[in-house]
This record gives sequence, structure tokens and C-alpha cells, in this order.
Amino acid sequence: MSSDRLVVAVDVMGSDGGASLVVRGVEYAVNKFPGEIGELVLVGDSVEIGTQISRCGRAFRKKSVEICHASQSIDMAEKPMSALRNKKDSSMFTAIGLLKNGEVSGILSCGNTGCLVAGGTLKLRTMPGIARPALASVIPVPGNHFVLVDVGANPSTTTANFVHNAVMGALYHKAAINSKKEPRVGLLTIGTEEGKGSEAIREAHEMLKKIDGEINYCGLVEGFQMFSNSVDVVVCDGFVGNILLKTIEALAGTLKNYVRKEMGKNPLRILGGILARGVFMAMKRDLSADSYGGAPLLGLNGAVVKAHGSSSVEAVASALRLTFKLAKVDNKSSLTKAIERVNALILR
Amino acid sequence: MSSDRLVVAVDVMGSDGGASLVVRGVEYAVNKFPGEIGELVLVGDSVEIGTQISRCGRAFRKKSVEICHASQSIDMAEKPMSALRNKKDSSMFTAIGLLKNGEVSGILSCGNTGCLVAGGTLKLRTMPGIARPALASVIPVPGNHFVLVDVGANPSTTTANFVHNAVMGALYHKAAINSKKEPRVGLLTIGTEEGKGSEAIREAHEMLKKIDGEINYCGLVEGFQMFSNSVDVVVCDGFVGNILLKTIEALAGTLKNYVRKEMGKNPLRILGGILARGVFMAMKRDLSADSYGGAPLLGLNGAVVKAHGSSSVEAVASALRLTFKLAKVDNKSSLTKAIERVNALILR
Repeated sequence: MSSDRLVVAVDVMGSDGGASLVVRGVEYAVNKFPGEIGELVLVGDSVEIGTQISRCGRAFRKKSVEICHASQSIDMAEKPMSALRNKKDSSMFTAIGLLKNGEVSGILSCGNTGCLVAGGTLKLRTMPGIARPALASVIPVPGNHFVLVDVGANPSTTTANFVHNAVMGALYHKAAINSKKEPRVGLLTIGTEEGKGSEAIREAHEMLKKIDGEINYCGLVEGFQMFSNSVDVVVCDGFVGNILLKTIEALAGTLKNYVRKEMGKNPLRILGGILARGVFMAMKRDLSADSYGGAPLLGLNGAVVKAHGSSSVEAVASALRLTFKLAKVDNKSSLTKAIERVNALILR
Repeated sequence: MSSDRLVVAVDVMGSDGGASLVVRGVEYAVNKFPGEIGELVLVGDSVEIGTQISRCGRAFRKKSVEICHASQSIDMAEKPMSALRNKKDSSMFTAIGLLKNGEVSGILSCGNTGCLVAGGTLKLRTMPGIARPALASVIPVPGNHFVLVDVGANPSTTTANFVHNAVMGALYHKAAINSKKEPRVGLLTIGTEEGKGSEAIREAHEMLKKIDGEINYCGLVEGFQMFSNSVDVVVCDGFVGNILLKTIEALAGTLKNYVRKEMGKNPLRILGGILARGVFMAMKRDLSADSYGGAPLLGLNGAVVKAHGSSSVEAVASALRLTFKLAKVDNKSSLTKAIERVNALILR
């Protein structure tokens, strides 16, 4: 692997839309972000991948894409322990293996989150000083994008995990969203007065105040503050984060469908909708989750990005772009040093 | 107090909009729901209340409303322990006292949630068999309204608390939303496969399966299922519920403001908005949180309803209507019996 030419492996199996959707997402990325997508290894059933590539446009068929055969795939209901035992030749674990052996610089999967977290942690290991990885998701709000971390890798977050998630989330914000800004980091709780929230939150808040300087910690934040452009990185435990992420996505989708249905109910409304279509285009531009279609698994030795099982073609494409971005930034050494300084302050 | 004429006390102080807003909310309720609002005791600064009543319409001024003077008020930043010590003559604690002494059948407050939970629990006590009260909020979604419980009374929910919240939430749904339907109760988690989520959730799930028959338990639910009309009562801990409630409210508000701003950006869009205004009216009708402006504190000896500090006049009115409804239903004996049966199954 040449250092100036990045390679990313894509786990083609395991998404709800099947190999077809993932390959089309990869093609879309290659055409839409030509300068940002390096070399590709597509991992999965080689016959299926070949078929899907043959259906793609000429430009993509001409691109040299490596296919890495894997005889198994992991479905969404598979349990991590069972997958680790019985699915050694799955596309997901094969992709993780390529990253471990240094054959690629990053991997992207739309598959089972639990298996990706378990397989990634076991095979790649966490970086020095970090006990557990965390999934970070970018949420678009008017005038801002904030990072929510952890959205489900670690449902039993300890105090130290919270602090590490804050540091990792801030570095991720710089790598993926805005390298020039020192992101405002907040700890999610249920009342910003000192002393409210759970025991773990109170302890984490004290620790985060201690390491201020390492990150731009702006204190405790409540649910509503996430949407008023007052915070760039929102730290929470994986249980809360996962429920929040699904709630935000579902509520936004529900409201969209409701408006679409009501808009079509009579000719006057349809005409109104046509005249005001700029509003809906602006909404798609400003508030679509597809523009950051992937959630990186932070804290592992290697760039691992998880995209939704139900990702659209555009979401797969932007997740692939994100994977290349993270593989390129490679802030392992700066993160390791930051965690070392932080651990010296918070761990006794 | 005659048994066929219900009396409710309203804590007039402590809302963000001041006594003026609360009194206008009470007036609005009296005019809008004449058959449902019984006798009223307004608790707070008597001069201030008198001034506010004098500004109301003739119909309301003519209604006999009792004023109960309280010399203190509790602000939003007050801590419960400090309020319990220093604010004995506050409007909130005076209202709770009226309920405790049987002078009223229910109370409504827009004030500090923590103080209401602490004061309510200490003075009114929880019902037999119930260790902690829970706040229940009604969330409107297209085609349904679901009850989210607990939204912040008890951030450290135990397994038994979860089960009690499920039973109380189901009874509340019947009392406030639909008396004819056996509500579908779900336990909120991060993945509906057996074995996912936290230890407390897994245990509560097993217990809820045991007591099925007592309630219509439909199992574990994920964040997105709340918005697809697949559950009527969503049980979660007070930490998660409070963050969720604030997130749902803030996200819905943010999207509304975004659309309003974009709609006004040029004449074509403004015209489109006028033609399609039926959509926004439908949205206000179907999805406004104001139609269930109050969250009852379930599990106490007496009907206690909390309305948002930032309630609108309409929200105060519907919260008052809800308080009368709950005071009238008075399902204490059926709840006590249900909890007794449930505790026999789940507590060893």
C-alpha cells in the first residue's frame, strides 16, 4: 500500500438494500467525489459483486476495483458472540482483517452494528489508554452540524469512557466537519444546574472541567440545546445516544411524510407546494442526514465507519467519502497523546 | 368539599410567563371547556392574582374563584432541599397542602419540576406499593398520541419502578386519552432482540412479561417505533425520558421555525404557503403538544399535574382540563389493587 494512495475496503453485504445498493453507492461516490475516493476493495460474494459492477455505468466499470471474496455474510439479527464463532469468513470480518493486516487504511460497513463493534474491538483493539470504542454520528440542525457520541457502541458508559468520548468527539469534529474551529463540547444531562443528572454524569462533569484546555468544554447541556446551535459535540452514554439518534431520525422522517401527505390532499395545496418547493429543496440541502451518511467507530486502531443498514445510495457515498477522509487524517498519534494527558489527570 | 363538585388548586406563580399567563390560561379553560372545569382555588400572591383577574373578561370575573394567599414563590433555579426548608409558604407547597388536607381534589403547577416532585412525594406520599412517582407526558404523533413515562421524576429508575411506571402509564392512558382501548405498552431500549440494552432493562422486560395480562405488554420498543403508531405507552427511566421529551419538543420546534423562515424568503414561497396553509393548520391540530399541556405526577395520593414552565395560554388551559379529568377519574383503588397484584409477582 503506497502511502500517498489510500485504499478503503467496503463490506458490500449486510445492508438492508443488499449488495446492489452498496455497489451503487460506491459508484455514486466515485462519480460525485472523484478527487476524494482512492483505491477500493469490495468485500463479499465475488459473483454477486461482479454482477452488480456489470450493471454500473461505464466510468465505474473502467475503474480498477479490487474484489475480495468472502463466503459468508452477517445478517442484522445475528448476535456478536455467535458471529465471532461462526462467521469467520464473513464480508465484515474479512474487511476488518484487511485493515488489521495493513492492506487497507479504512473500512466501511452497512452491516450489523453489534458485530462490527465486537469484531472491530477484538481484532483491531482500542488505542492505548482507551477502554471502549464509541460510535459518533453527525446530526444536521439549522446553521450547524453537531456530533453525537456515543450512539450505541457502549451502552454502559463509565466516567472515564465519557471523558474519552469527549476528546475523541472533538477530534472527530475537527477531522470531519471543521478543522479550523475548536468545537464546543457539552455533556448531555437533564438539567444544567450543578448536581442534577446521574452519579456518572456528575463525576464526568467534574473530570471534564479538570481537563478543560485539552478540549473546549462548555459544560452540561440539555436536550433542547442541541438544536439551538450552542454545542458542536454532545457527549452521552451509548444507551441514551442510540435512542436519541433513532428518535431524531424517526421524528424528522415522520414530520416529512406527514407534510408530504397533507400537501397532496387537494389541488390548492399541491399548487402551494409547487410554488414553495424551494423550501423543501433547502431543507434537503441543510437538514439531510445523508450528507454525513456514516458513523465512525472512534478509538480503534484504524478507520472504521458504520453506515445505516437502511442507507440510501447517497448515504453510502458520503459514508465512503468520510471513510477516506478519516483514513487520510490519521490522527492516531495526536489522539493517543491527548488521551495520555487526560488519563494522567482523571485516573488515579 | 362536595363530592359532586370538584375543586382544583392552581399554583399561579413560578411559570416563565408569570401569574398573568397562568390566570389567562385558567380563564381560557373556563370559557373553552365550561362543562369540564369545576371550582377553582388560585394560589399565590393575592394582590397579584386580584390584579390579573381584574384584567380578565367579564364572564371569568363573574365566576366565583377562590384566592388562597401564599407569600412566597419558588423560582426555576431553586433546589428542592432548599425550597423544602425555606419556602414553606410558597404557592406550590400551599397548593400541595390543600390537596393533602382534602380541601381540593387536584393541583396544577407550571413551576419547578424538582420541587414539585420532592414536595409532592414528601407531603402526599406515594400510593401503597409504589416507591417513586413518575411524570407522564403525552406526545402527539400522526394518527396517535402516546404516553412517555417517566419524563424526569426519577432519574435512577429501578426494575420495580419500571414495572410500576408501565402499570401507571397504562391506567393514565385509559383515563386521559382513550378509556375503551387496552393500551399497548412498550419498554424503550436500543435493540429489540432479547438480551440487548442495559441490565435493568433486561430484568424489567422479564418482569413485564410475567405480569402480562395486568397490562397489554407488547415488549421492547426502539426509538423509531414511537412514531409509527405501534405503541401507546412508552416506559423508560427518568433520565432518558427527560432528554427525549426535550429533544422531541426542540426538534419539532426547530423544524417549524426553519420552515416558517424559509417560507417567507420570497413572494412565490409566501404565496405557496398561503395556498397550502391547510397543511399547517392540520399540523397544529394533529401534532400540537398544547392539546395535552400537562404531565401528571403518577403514583402520589392525589392528582398532581405539572405543566411546562414555558406553557402557552392554551397549554395551561388543557393542563387544567386534564387535572379535573384525573381528579374525577380517581383510579386510586384500581391502581392500588393492580400494584398489589403486580408486586406479588415481581417482588420476592
